[in-house]
Amino acid sequence: MDYPSLLLENAVSELSKLPGIGRRTALRFALHLLKNDPIVTSQLADSITKLRSEIKFCRICNSISDHETCFVCNDMKRNHGIVCVVENVRDVMAIENTHQYNGTYHVLGGIISPIEGIGAKDIDIEHLISRVREGGIEEIIMALPTTIEGDTTSFYINKMLIGCGVRVSAIARGVSVGDNIEFADEVTLGRSIANRLPFSEMYK
Amino acid sequence: MDYPSLLLENAVSELSKLPGIGRRTALRFALHLLKNDPIVTSQLADSITKLRSEIKFCRICNSISDHETCFVCNDMKRNHGIVCVVENVRDVMAIENTHQYNGTYHVLGGIISPIEGIGAKDIDIEHLISRVREGGIEEIIMALPTTIEGDTTSFYINKMLIGCGVRVSAIARGVSVGDNIEFADEVTLGRSIANRLPFSEMYK
Repeated sequence: MDYPSLLLENAVSELSKLPGIGRRTALRFALHLLKNDPIVTSQLADSITKLRSEIKFCRICNSISDHETCFVCNDMKRNHGIVCVVENVRDVMAIENTHQYNGTYHVLGGIISPIEGIGAKDIDIEHLISRVREGGIEEIIMALPTTIEGDTTSFYINKMLIGCGVRVSAIARGVSVGDNIEFADEVTLGRSIANRLPFSEMYK
Repeated sequence: MDYPSLLLENAVSELSKLPGIGRRTALRFALHLLKNDPIVTSQLADSITKLRSEIKFCRICNSISDHETCFVCNDMKRNHGIVCVVENVRDVMAIENTHQYNGTYHVLGGIISPIEGIGAKDIDIEHLISRVREGGIEEIIMALPTTIEGDTTSFYINKMLIGCGVRVSAIARGVSVGDNIEFADEVTLGRSIANRLPFSEMYK
C-alpha cells in the first residue's frame, strides 16, 4: 500500500512491529492518534519510553519492578521459603490475582525450546539454583506450561535440584472449575482422575 | 488486575487507549517492548511523536501530507477538474491503490451523523463548496459509505452544489468482482441490475 506521507509510513512500520499487529491495524492506530488530542500521543510515547528505560528487574526473583527488588520479595509477611517457578511476568500477575498464594516467585524469562534456539543457559535457571543453595527455601512449585517445552524445563530444573534438599512440587492439572466433564480433553480428564484428592481436602 | 509496577501500569493504560485494544492486549504489547531491544521502543515512541507533531493537512484537499499540499494536489499530471469526495484518508489510500483514478480528492474528515453529534458544520463541506465556486472543477464523484449517514452526507452535498455548474456522480455499487451472484445481498444485487451497463462499456 502506498502512503500519502513518510511520517505516516514510519509510524505504521513501527506500530506493526507490535505482536499480532499487521499494517492495516497499525494504520488504524496511526490515524486514531492523528485524530485525537496531541496529549494522548505524547502520553503514550512518554509512557513506553519510561517503561523501557526506567523499569528494573527484581534482583531476587527476576520479576519486573520499579525498584531494585519487587513488591513480592519486599513483603516480609509472605513466606520466603516457598518459590513458585514461572515462565514470565504475566504468570506472576495471574497467580497474584487468585489471592491464594503467599510465597515468592522465580521468573525464568522463557522456557527451554530447542526449536527456537533457547537452551537452559538462556533462561534464568542458574540463578534459581543459587537461590536454593543459599538456603532458606523449603519448596519449589513448578508452574510452567504443560507443553513439551514446559515439561522439558520442569524436568531439567527438577534434575538440577536433586540433592539440594528442597521439596519440588507442581501445580495441579485437571478439569477447570465450572467445566463440564464430558467436554474435557482426555489427557486433562485422565490427570484429574489419577491425581484425585480426598474429598475432605478439596475445600479446605 | 494488579500490576507489579507503576511504570507498567501507566504504559498499559496508555496502550489500551488505542482502538480495539483492551488491557490484556496492551499488557502483551508492553511486555513485548520490555523483552525487545530498547531501540525498538524508542523508534516507536519517536515515530508516533513526530507523526502527531509534524504531519500537515493538505490545504487544498484536507488529506494528510508531509508538506503544505499533498502529493495528489501537487501532481500536475493529474486531472484537477475531477474531485472525489471521501470520508477519510484511508479511502484516499484505497482508491490510490486501484491505480484507476487520475483525479484529485476532497477528504471530509467524517460524515454527518446526528447520533454522534456530527453536523454538516463539523466536517469539511464548506471548503469543498468554496473549491467548486473558485472554478476549474467539472465533476464531483461521491465515494461515501452506503449507510444512512453516508447517504445523508451525499444528499446534503449534492443539494449544496445545485447551481454551481458541476456534474455530481457517485461510484458504482454492485456485486463484487469474483463474488457469486447467489450469495450477494438483495440490495446490492438489485442495484447491480438497475445500474447495468452496455456490455461493450464494461471492459473499456
